[in-house]
Amino acid sequence: MQAGRPIELNGKPIAGGKVPLVCTPLVGRSADAILCELERIVPKRPDVLEWRVDFFDRIGDAEAVIATAGRIRQAAGGTPLLFTRRSAAEGGEAIALGEQQVVALYEALCAARAAELVDFEMRSDPAHLRRVREAARANGIALVLSYHDFTQTPPAAEILQRFRDAQALGADVAKVALMPRGPDDVLTLLAATLQASRELPIPLISMSMGGYGALTRMFGWAFGSALTFAIGDRGSAPGQMPIEDLQAVLAIAAKAFGGK
Amino acid sequence: MQAGRPIELNGKPIAGGKVPLVCTPLVGRSADAILCELERIVPKRPDVLEWRVDFFDRIGDAEAVIATAGRIRQAAGGTPLLFTRRSAAEGGEAIALGEQQVVALYEALCAARAAELVDFEMRSDPAHLRRVREAARANGIALVLSYHDFTQTPPAAEILQRFRDAQALGADVAKVALMPRGPDDVLTLLAATLQASRELPIPLISMSMGGYGALTRMFGWAFGSALTFAIGDRGSAPGQMPIEDLQAVLAIAAKAFGGK
Repeated sequence: MQAGRPIELNGKPIAGGKVPLVCTPLVGRSADAILCELERIVPKRPDVLEWRVDFFDRIGDAEAVIATAGRIRQAAGGTPLLFTRRSAAEGGEAIALGEQQVVALYEALCAARAAELVDFEMRSDPAHLRRVREAARANGIALVLSYHDFTQTPPAAEILQRFRDAQALGADVAKVALMPRGPDDVLTLLAATLQASRELPIPLISMSMGGYGALTRMFGWAFGSALTFAIGDRGSAPGQMPIEDLQAVLAIAAKAFGGK
Repeated sequence: MQAGRPIELNGKPIAGGKVPLVCTPLVGRSADAILCELERIVPKRPDVLEWRVDFFDRIGDAEAVIATAGRIRQAAGGTPLLFTRRSAAEGGEAIALGEQQVVALYEALCAARAAELVDFEMRSDPAHLRRVREAARANGIALVLSYHDFTQTPPAAEILQRFRDAQALGADVAKVALMPRGPDDVLTLLAATLQASRELPIPLISMSMGGYGALTRMFGWAFGSALTFAIGDRGSAPGQMPIEDLQAVLAIAAKAFGGK
């Protein structure tokens, strides 16, 4: 079966090249809340943890952020950590920091090597993006460049262009998440992902959100998406499924697709 | 969530309008073998049973066929029976009967009202198709007109035309089953089904076969397919999944799609 290019860390595929990786978000407001989430999540064996730092009440304190990342990694027992500040414009929480401060936070986190991957939005100011990319590169951290639209799904050619943009901007992984308005949009997202996976040398992550999009969270891997998000304890975007349900479907699908 | 138009019997939707219906094939060579299959299948609660009469060693004996249909229905406890002779040209078993004899068998079975639905191939001789349609209509039996290609998936416009053909030929239900050569073909089949479901007033059944196509057996309902085939005891086409697996995925999907 056609599958996404696996996501690598320093040349080694995560989880032995498993596709799709299942990633659960951490959305606690405090370090204690996050560690409490982790206690419930870790036994469910996600392949990657995403810390959505825009939920964190001390996001303005870089030292606290780095210390908390360290505590997460200690509790996670080797599961790679994806560090993400999602902007309010792309579906994240409103935060008190300006963009310059966000970039400085990414730089500090990368310098401390406090995560294995960082997600940065590809629509960010090019100078900011360059700084985050350099910080990630200099410290052996994989850079996910992401694009989110919570209102609609553009035509396939535009989606394909978003993936190309990410690659052109130096992404190690390109991520596109869109809201479908109907089942057609789900097929459009899958078709564009498939085309991008044939054209681009980097691994991709894509999904349709919301109810209609659940299909892509379960089967996007068959069209070139290397990672899917699922709820470990609490979700971070519309349409995410409990990790147990997703893992059950993936096991059945692996059997049904029978190596094709 | 977009769903297929439910399949009705005399104006009443099967299984209360459940979408998708899950249909398991019966492929025994003898009446005893079929009844043995049924003992294993009935506890798994399929919504429809398909008797693939081309597997039956006494297909040349209309009385034996009708009697066996009666025994199947008795054992099935009210689960509707779909009677199907699949031709060798469309993936069925080779049989000793000529097409005239097949049509006479359908006429006899309909006259005996020995099934709730019959499947007849839309590429059949038009005169034969007319006779089967009349026999089904005269006896209140639903007519599925079907099209199978075990080698390829044509472009979406051609697939849509097959659904239209079935409707034009007087089908109560239109069925199209195609072999994909890659994941693109799976999306093509789903897109064509979605378009047909918006355009045509009759319920549709569609699937991609083989490994790639398993996705459509699980999620074709979200794109307008009203029924999906699963293995109760033994399969009848490439890519069919065990009914238990399919039911598990459908339950998870119903939760994930959350009414959309």
